[in-house]
Amino acid sequence: MSTSTLPAAPPARPVAGATCCAPLTREPLSAEDAAVLARSLKAIADPARLRLLSLVAAHAGGEACACDLTEPLGLSQPTVSHHLKVLVEAGLLTRDKRGVWAYYAVVPEALDALAAVLTTTPADGRAARP
Amino acid sequence: MSTSTLPAAPPARPVAGATCCAPLTREPLSAEDAAVLARSLKAIADPARLRLLSLVAAHAGGEACACDLTEPLGLSQPTVSHHLKVLVEAGLLTRDKRGVWAYYAVVPEALDALAAVLTTTPADGRAARP
Repeated sequence: MSTSTLPAAPPARPVAGATCCAPLTREPLSAEDAAVLARSLKAIADPARLRLLSLVAAHAGGEACACDLTEPLGLSQPTVSHHLKVLVEAGLLTRDKRGVWAYYAVVPEALDALAAVLTTTPADGRAARP
Repeated sequence: MSTSTLPAAPPARPVAGATCCAPLTREPLSAEDAAVLARSLKAIADPARLRLLSLVAAHAGGEACACDLTEPLGLSQPTVSHHLKVLVEAGLLTRDKRGVWAYYAVVPEALDALAAVLTTTPADGRAARP
């Protein structure tokens, strides 16, 4: 999926961790990178939002209707909507409005970017373990 | 390391994520696991604490004296002490008092456990991507 032919389009979804950072234990984190990373982590540092990410990913086709997410969480619909909005704004979920319902899908790259920053054994094999 | 012979001992250090969870995108997270995981993520969802983890890991021998962590962060010593305490309580740092100073080291297993929960491509090769 390329967006290079749409130069005037605003960034549709900020991908968490995409602009930052080297693995945490490989080199000292700058203040700027730490702020960006903390923002992404705050978006997932919530039990309801973690469960929403997990529920959406577990759904058939990796996509879930908002209408299917309220009941398993046992939270009110406005509360679930709020948490979904936080996750979309953090670039962890995409939102696609079809008819009266919105459908959500996990952005695997965003979760993988966070995992890559935290791991002490990066995929490139360069051990960052202290 | 076994603690089975020390039934009366309090847990020396809770290891973040050690008791939970399967990768987020592999199966729906239970409410209990979500609460445990959110607690660990909250401990690192802070710019100062992320920088502390990174600074400690970057130090010679992977261990840093509290006395060397205040200046690079530009925060007061009590504030740094508070953040270090949160990280120790979350099992992300160990603390070793020697003489007048405390020395901190990163717990790689704790960071790796968090990374393993977030990644959509688990190390065992079973793709969890939605």
